[in-house]
Amino acid sequence: MYEIGPSLMCADLGNLERDVKQLDAAGVDFYHIDIMDGSFVPNFTLGPDLVRSVRNMTDRPLDMHLMVDKPERYVSMFVNAGADRIAVHAESTNSLQGTLSQIRRAGAEAGVAISPATPLEALDYVYDVTDYVIVMTVNPGFAGQKFIEPMYDKIENLAGRIRSRGRDIPIEVDGNIGAGTIPECARRGATRFIGGTSAIFRQGSSLADNVRNTRLLFDQA
Amino acid sequence: MYEIGPSLMCADLGNLERDVKQLDAAGVDFYHIDIMDGSFVPNFTLGPDLVRSVRNMTDRPLDMHLMVDKPERYVSMFVNAGADRIAVHAESTNSLQGTLSQIRRAGAEAGVAISPATPLEALDYVYDVTDYVIVMTVNPGFAGQKFIEPMYDKIENLAGRIRSRGRDIPIEVDGNIGAGTIPECARRGATRFIGGTSAIFRQGSSLADNVRNTRLLFDQA
Amino acid sequence: MYEIGPSLMCADLGNLERDVKQLDAAGVDFYHIDIMDGSFVPNFTLGPDLVRSVRNMTDRPLDMHLMVDKPERYVSMFVNAGADRIAVHAESTNSLQGTLSQIRRAGAEAGVAISPATPLEALDYVYDVTDYVIVMTVNPGFAGQKFIEPMYDKIENLAGRIRSRGRDIPIEVDGNIGAGTIPECARRGATRFIGGTSAIFRQGSSLADNVRNTRLLFDQA
Amino acid sequence: MYEIGPSLMCADLGNLERDVKQLDAAGVDFYHIDIMDGSFVPNFTLGPDLVRSVRNMTDRPLDMHLMVDKPERYVSMFVNAGADRIAVHAESTNSLQGTLSQIRRAGAEAGVAISPATPLEALDYVYDVTDYVIVMTVNPGFAGQKFIEPMYDKIENLAGRIRSRGRDIPIEVDGNIGAGTIPECARRGATRFIGGTSAIFRQGSSLADNVRNTRLLFDQA
Amino acid sequence: MYEIGPSLMCADLGNLERDVKQLDAAGVDFYHIDIMDGSFVPNFTLGPDLVRSVRNMTDRPLDMHLMVDKPERYVSMFVNAGADRIAVHAESTNSLQGTLSQIRRAGAEAGVAISPATPLEALDYVYDVTDYVIVMTVNPGFAGQKFIEPMYDKIENLAGRIRSRGRDIPIEVDGNIGAGTIPECARRGATRFIGGTSAIFRQGSSLADNVRNTRLLFDQA
Amino acid sequence: MYEIGPSLMCADLGNLERDVKQLDAAGVDFYHIDIMDGSFVPNFTLGPDLVRSVRNMTDRPLDMHLMVDKPERYVSMFVNAGADRIAVHAESTNSLQGTLSQIRRAGAEAGVAISPATPLEALDYVYDVTDYVIVMTVNPGFAGQKFIEPMYDKIENLAGRIRSRGRDIPIEVDGNIGAGTIPECARRGATRFIGGTSAIFRQGSSLADNVRNTRLLFDQA
Repeated sequence: MYEIGPSLMCADLGNLERDVKQLDAAGVDFYHIDIMDGSFVPNFTLGPDLVRSVRNMTDRPLDMHLMVDKPERYVSMFVNAGADRIAVHAESTNSLQGTLSQIRRAGAEAGVAISPATPLEALDYVYDVTDYVIVMTVNPGFAGQKFIEPMYDKIENLAGRIRSRGRDIPIEVDGNIGAGTIPECARRGATRFIGGTSAIFRQGSSLADNVRNTRLLFDQA
Repeated sequence: MYEIGPSLMCADLGNLERDVKQLDAAGVDFYHIDIMDGSFVPNFTLGPDLVRSVRNMTDRPLDMHLMVDKPERYVSMFVNAGADRIAVHAESTNSLQGTLSQIRRAGAEAGVAISPATPLEALDYVYDVTDYVIVMTVNPGFAGQKFIEPMYDKIENLAGRIRSRGRDIPIEVDGNIGAGTIPECARRGATRFIGGTSAIFRQGSSLADNVRNTRLLFDQA
Repeated sequence: MYEIGPSLMCADLGNLERDVKQLDAAGVDFYHIDIMDGSFVPNFTLGPDLVRSVRNMTDRPLDMHLMVDKPERYVSMFVNAGADRIAVHAESTNSLQGTLSQIRRAGAEAGVAISPATPLEALDYVYDVTDYVIVMTVNPGFAGQKFIEPMYDKIENLAGRIRSRGRDIPIEVDGNIGAGTIPECARRGATRFIGGTSAIFRQGSSLADNVRNTRLLFDQA
Repeated sequence: MYEIGPSLMCADLGNLERDVKQLDAAGVDFYHIDIMDGSFVPNFTLGPDLVRSVRNMTDRPLDMHLMVDKPERYVSMFVNAGADRIAVHAESTNSLQGTLSQIRRAGAEAGVAISPATPLEALDYVYDVTDYVIVMTVNPGFAGQKFIEPMYDKIENLAGRIRSRGRDIPIEVDGNIGAGTIPECARRGATRFIGGTSAIFRQGSSLADNVRNTRLLFDQA
Repeated sequence: MYEIGPSLMCADLGNLERDVKQLDAAGVDFYHIDIMDGSFVPNFTLGPDLVRSVRNMTDRPLDMHLMVDKPERYVSMFVNAGADRIAVHAESTNSLQGTLSQIRRAGAEAGVAISPATPLEALDYVYDVTDYVIVMTVNPGFAGQKFIEPMYDKIENLAGRIRSRGRDIPIEVDGNIGAGTIPECARRGATRFIGGTSAIFRQGSSLADNVRNTRLLFDQA
Repeated sequence: MYEIGPSLMCADLGNLERDVKQLDAAGVDFYHIDIMDGSFVPNFTLGPDLVRSVRNMTDRPLDMHLMVDKPERYVSMFVNAGADRIAVHAESTNSLQGTLSQIRRAGAEAGVAISPATPLEALDYVYDVTDYVIVMTVNPGFAGQKFIEPMYDKIENLAGRIRSRGRDIPIEVDGNIGAGTIPECARRGATRFIGGTSAIFRQGSSLADNVRNTRLLFDQA
């Protein structure tokens, strides 16, 4: 039921293939790839060439997180590069319903990401075209931030709204996901976890150990 | 006198450290790293985390090419990540003189990149704060384009303007640089060459062979 | 009680006066004119010169739908061109209350248009300056799209909110309005219908017949 | 319990020190300083140099109201200039939670300003990082506008939401604050009042009298 | 040698087909269609639906004048609508060379339009991908403006630059083109004329007469 | 022949009327007022309310320097506030000729400001609608910067271009104007000087002395 996906932004970017092979062997469920434009968030990360490269290393789903203005311009670029899932920020487009539909028509799963301050009403009329929701548990843009406490309630509220609509939409959490936050996130309703420097890429132990230890946390939920 | 720098956007992004080690051994002069924001150019590439990663692999100069709007916002981010040289596009900022000065004050060499249509007058009053000029010989944004013929004249005109001001500013060329274009670019005045899929990352031969063959072309100039 | 207004974007743009004369004779209630800026939506349509031209052909209300960023810049331009009603998108301005007030002060009726994903909370504090609401039942920007199912609930929810505030604000629906959607939209609370290629400009029958047949649908509500 | 702060935009800009000295003597609680960028609102007002200047005249809190796009870029500029409190508009940033946290980390109190049409849901997940809320009772950008009636309900609704969360967050009101509006605003839950041309800078009486008369209004609440 | 093309923005927009038929019969050489986005210029005009409509009325070349930011986004939209020639403003794109090449690859002629203040250096490196140049002789955005005198010199200077490069690139002039300006424009080197309210759409005489009279002016050149 | 105008951004903003009275008595020729929007330059300064306030203190010309994007939106706001001269940046508008004409039609003198890197070709086709040129000798945005050396040549080149066109357009210089730079600027052709912290607002001597000493420097030219 629970899935763990490493955030490739936190991998060893000089030896990505090695890391991906190890992560594949360790049994991660998917790979999370962040795209930033320096405008929606003040940073830059990876691009479609890197997605294409990862596509050749693994068969697991590639889960794109577009932190860019007007992401509708880039859906086909990332689908062509090999993306299986594409999440766009509710705050980044005037055409959220249209963008989600566009992602599905392009053959990928459509996700909505919501920044910490974004109210859940932003999703009221898109549940039928949403395949998953990313609840940002830190502000998007940089690794290494602290979990924002009210996001626990947000996860729970979102889970309730999804249930009350009779839908089954996975809630993915992204930001400071690790031993200190996974159990509570899971209790509140999250089922997909993005593993960064607090989980899968924790220093001092192997990727395989980190994946295993992360899975153990799911049992506490 | 002539320098060759691989464009890391064209490297094997899954095995970047391996490629950089081989390129270091083959004696490249510097590394060229492209940053795109989806707005100044309609694509995304790499980011400061990757720069930081490459910084740990090599001592050669890291040459950043910022294809982003208002690059003055990101100078310190890339210097902190380990950049030795930062080039910004003349078309991307209202404050070209200020941005070049800012790059120098931050401890890096300051470059100006000019897109194919940009006239040389854009440089008239910044030669004293310019450490190198990148003449784009394709439109910035994507690998694999065809060399734009009038850029030969542009290189020559630029070389003349630099000489007539008594300055010694290297001209770097970027875009479809290979056997078919290097000799003429060099004859016209270019001395730094960005090697992509037409030179250093040519398929079918090793990186070492590609670097060696590229250097041989300099002798024809 | 029910009103039908043709979307002039779907008329024969080469013979607009002829179409408007026929539509006037057929008894349409108003004319709907779309304005797009290539930024809020990725398309272009008509402009104030065309509004001025239509103004000289008919006395029926001209109902403008501004799909443009910061529409507050263009209110007076369209009022001067002859608009009777101006709707702006809630998503397109930081100053929705001010823009609606500005439209009224300029002597026109003030409408709010909401894109499919926009939650109804966007209207919470502007009911007193809103003369009508356009519920977009497709994503704005192009003709010929499919009706978005959850918009039926949205219409009903909106109608309830308006009633519970003791107000009488017409709900206008725009997007794939025709035989398959008008009865249910009307049952849910819509009273103004924008007729495009699925209703008034349906191929194979005359404009007069199309208007008559559309009105018949109202009886089913 | 109630606090009054003059809006320095309405002071005699030629004799600001004189006005501030008189206002200090008259016992105002804080100073409100508006910053506009010509984009978020179509006007320009004051800047950090003026804040620095006021900082040298008084020890009372300086309360900044940033009406600018992406205010996260300017937090440190205004803290360095001497600001004690900084409010940013919920509509002006994709990163409201992050910007409020940034203001606190910089050592100032963090406020959220909401334009008249903005729904209260915008605050749902930031109460824990919000030190005060500014309810705009006119559209931001210009002095001399009329109070927007539904803002009374908004104040009351907001006060209820804050109470139900067990928090104690002051509600500040800004726009046409004077004899006709202060008592009702206070009854509904506002405790901080920005005094402009309808209160502290009313023509025909001294600043001292105006401050005193404004305080008398609090007793009616 | 000389060509005249009516600006359809100035036609009777209610009876466009009638006007186009008359203009075809009167022997105009092409049709000029203005597209505005409310941002590059503060106005809106026509769109691709209208282009498509005109395409069905005539076989003469359709000459698009894109007054929009980042026109590279819209090249294929207008080619698909039936455009034969597309001109983009040098001031509107960071990628002028690329956009011109893109227009040609899409099968249309590529034009560069330059606003009155734009220096001719903007064209220095794009002559080889330019099929025609539009010298704006009024500021783009509105009909009915006065001819800007220094544009005569600009036409002449441009003609000289084209000749000295051994090229044959027509110069098109747009803005207050009529009896008072055509002869001098022609003497200076213009060969294509956009006829608006001062020529082809002059009130008081027929379109046919206006076309004939305009052609007579060419003999004076 | 030479004129000196204090930059009010550098005055004592708490006692502006006192400073203006002293400067008037000391015989300054005009007042320079900077407007910044946080986007064209990363700072904020003053606004139309302050201009209105200064207008009531003095009859000397008020010289506005708009460092804002698309200044054409704000011409009438500043003319209404009392501006006698308005300069806009060549880099800030796509419609430089139109904006200068608009300033003149509004009854003010029209100036063009050019940032340090901007080539003089930007002025080629606007000399007939330009009443003065501001050569920025530092990068716009902040006080206290160092004079940029190549600006001496720029002034001289500009003076030559103006002369060769038989025009008489004053050259105004702005940025680190003081004892170290005024004589050379004057020798190269500048006649209007903006006095900031290096001249009129130099610490340690009175405004009157500073004005007198600045005028003495003109004799060295």
